[in-house]
Amino acid sequence: MAEIPLAPLIRILKRTNIDRVSDDAAAELRNILEEYAVEVSERASKLAKHAGRVTIKAEDIRLAK
Amino acid sequence: MAEIPLAPLIRILKRTNIDRVSDDAAAELRNILEEYAVEVSERASKLAKHAGRVTIKAEDIRLAK
Repeated sequence: MAEIPLAPLIRILKRTNIDRVSDDAAAELRNILEEYAVEVSERASKLAKHAGRVTIKAEDIRLAK
Repeated sequence: MAEIPLAPLIRILKRTNIDRVSDDAAAELRNILEEYAVEVSERASKLAKHAGRVTIKAEDIRLAK
């Protein structure tokens, strides 16, 4: 998949008080986040249709979390 | 926070069979993903230290998931 860029994830990882982040750690975090994003997106899509809409809104994402 | 760009999240949302995605839906998905990223990062940081390292590795991310 690899949609989300690694740089923002490296910044998030470095906010924890750790010295270094390996490249494969950032890539693994991306994999985990994208899997979760796909799950939430699929539930949100079903919720939007269930509400009679063709547009995913923020309320669908919150309910799909 | 707003580290992750919205464009890749909109692409993930549009892979579900839905016509449209509101801007606030993509922003909400970003919020959820970043909260989860921070949680995983903090656990991974502790796990790296617990293993006597100063570098977060992919194995820390997997265990922190």
